[in-house]
Amino acid sequence: MPRTRTERNATLHLARVPSGEAGPGDFEVRESAIPRPHGGEVLIRTHYVGIDAALRLIVRDSSDFLFRVKPRDVVHGSGAGEVLESRHPDYRVGDAVIGSFGVQRYAISDGSGLERCDTSLAPLSTWLGPMGVSGLTAYFAMFDECKPQPGQTVLVTGAAGAVGSIAGQLARLAGARTIGLTSTDPKCRWLESELGYHVAINYRAPDFREQLERAAPERIDAIFDNVGGAVLDESLRLIGMRGCVLLCGSTSQYPAETMQGPSNYIWLGTMRARMQGFVVFDYAARYGEGRRRLAAFAKAGSLKMPEHIVRGDVSDFPAALRSLYRGENKGKMVLRLPAAG
Amino acid sequence: MPRTRTERNATLHLARVPSGEAGPGDFEVRESAIPRPHGGEVLIRTHYVGIDAALRLIVRDSSDFLFRVKPRDVVHGSGAGEVLESRHPDYRVGDAVIGSFGVQRYAISDGSGLERCDTSLAPLSTWLGPMGVSGLTAYFAMFDECKPQPGQTVLVTGAAGAVGSIAGQLARLAGARTIGLTSTDPKCRWLESELGYHVAINYRAPDFREQLERAAPERIDAIFDNVGGAVLDESLRLIGMRGCVLLCGSTSQYPAETMQGPSNYIWLGTMRARMQGFVVFDYAARYGEGRRRLAAFAKAGSLKMPEHIVRGDVSDFPAALRSLYRGENKGKMVLRLPAAG
Repeated sequence: MPRTRTERNATLHLARVPSGEAGPGDFEVRESAIPRPHGGEVLIRTHYVGIDAALRLIVRDSSDFLFRVKPRDVVHGSGAGEVLESRHPDYRVGDAVIGSFGVQRYAISDGSGLERCDTSLAPLSTWLGPMGVSGLTAYFAMFDECKPQPGQTVLVTGAAGAVGSIAGQLARLAGARTIGLTSTDPKCRWLESELGYHVAINYRAPDFREQLERAAPERIDAIFDNVGGAVLDESLRLIGMRGCVLLCGSTSQYPAETMQGPSNYIWLGTMRARMQGFVVFDYAARYGEGRRRLAAFAKAGSLKMPEHIVRGDVSDFPAALRSLYRGENKGKMVLRLPAAG
Repeated sequence: MPRTRTERNATLHLARVPSGEAGPGDFEVRESAIPRPHGGEVLIRTHYVGIDAALRLIVRDSSDFLFRVKPRDVVHGSGAGEVLESRHPDYRVGDAVIGSFGVQRYAISDGSGLERCDTSLAPLSTWLGPMGVSGLTAYFAMFDECKPQPGQTVLVTGAAGAVGSIAGQLARLAGARTIGLTSTDPKCRWLESELGYHVAINYRAPDFREQLERAAPERIDAIFDNVGGAVLDESLRLIGMRGCVLLCGSTSQYPAETMQGPSNYIWLGTMRARMQGFVVFDYAARYGEGRRRLAAFAKAGSLKMPEHIVRGDVSDFPAALRSLYRGENKGKMVLRLPAAG
């Protein structure tokens, strides 16, 4: 893929620490020459940038969180692309790779955190979502921690999100009844018709509680939580005997200055249930296994790999992030840069 | 123990559904003839009545809870006593027994829920506390669920209570560092000097958070929670990697109309920790094992069986309950009736 003389790098920066949710005015795009790799480095051309829920954390000025961005840094972000030049022994020109490239058209990497993608398993973009940490979170959390059994009921919050859109399908493959919670009626229809959820419920519906009770007459064996907050709390009321609540994300809580605790945690006591945290990085040694299985499910036609692809350039990242905040995505949201063709 | 002609039964009733915490005006004592057992029944003379934290639940007009008392019912309560007359094949006059007798001097039982006490293991009163469900909760929750290891740090909330006063000692026997949280400085001193807690902290102290952080520089491996609410929430901030939070009771939450959720549950995610409910009745088949071990620890001098014994009659039950509400007890609170001598 030859570069023309007019091509330049474009990088997205945080212009200031946002107050509340980050908006377009909080970012700025800068152009610069395409960087050159030194010895031991590769130059990567970014095809796709992941729009990650964890990026909400950039709005918080807290040392607790991994994803905090300081003004003037390139905004963090996962990327998928191709190696354009290599001075690294392990990578060759044309290799498909993913990594934390930051939001920019071209990135230099010394290979740390870089992974080669076998695109014969699944298309490059999916390696940021269904084949990336989102899908792997769903895979390991569901099969190593939730372990749903045929006939059980599994509830997924944030069911249309990057993780939830895979998690519900995996629970269905295991023979469980699946209930998906999401924020709009169109997403409910999509969950039921496209992803095979047995029931999808809009948690903003005025009769949400009644709908949820009707959907889970024998209570819930596993809650796969991606959002936290009030939706988790309402779900906890219906946790079943020796049930399991897996905390895979708490997107509703990221922008909050004061977190809301789930008052229905008291049901854990009554029901001898457990609520536990899950961090996919603990399973890094088994990512290969997870990806092979997910790809095999997809090839067999039993798993869809939903992606919400937005075409644009790095300047479109803030709008895409805002759209993610608003829950407008179905599946993993990905920004497709011009380099992807 | 001969009965004189003037002896009568006395029973405690709820006069009305209390608003908020139950006070003396919410109860009334009634006298009646001593009941006689029919075929298959025993007559029991109550020596000790347990003042149980779960009795707080009588203040709530909710069908969710086991211990709800309707006006005119005899107030529920655990009792320890002796069989005075038996028309039941399994019990003989003089047998020491515990059961849910209700708050009354004499009780009739058909044997259901009745247990014979081997008072050679431990004195009769302890069968309502350290040898009863309080001690058994501590034993099974600590050794079957928490499983503390030498060098680990175990935090007990409600450390001076019926369950906590045993739990901390068991964690110490397992080689763990123990931190006890309680509500007064005198109870702190008692926890450290009498029960062998490594550190005891008054959670009402203005610098509670700093004291807790100093006491747990390597975070906390297990939180053994008996109170819930703000104390649990503050403790969750310090849960350690793959830590365990056992919910054994939530006394602070019983009287509340709206429960407070622990906003720091978010630390479960970061720390891959789990929070789970525990109900001792699930271990009923193993109570014998637990009691033999607890008694053996006590005989070896490595476990104290703290009891807070109040002398009185059934009319003194409301004041004792109120004292329990206020956290004035050290160890299990028990009302000793005149029959105990």
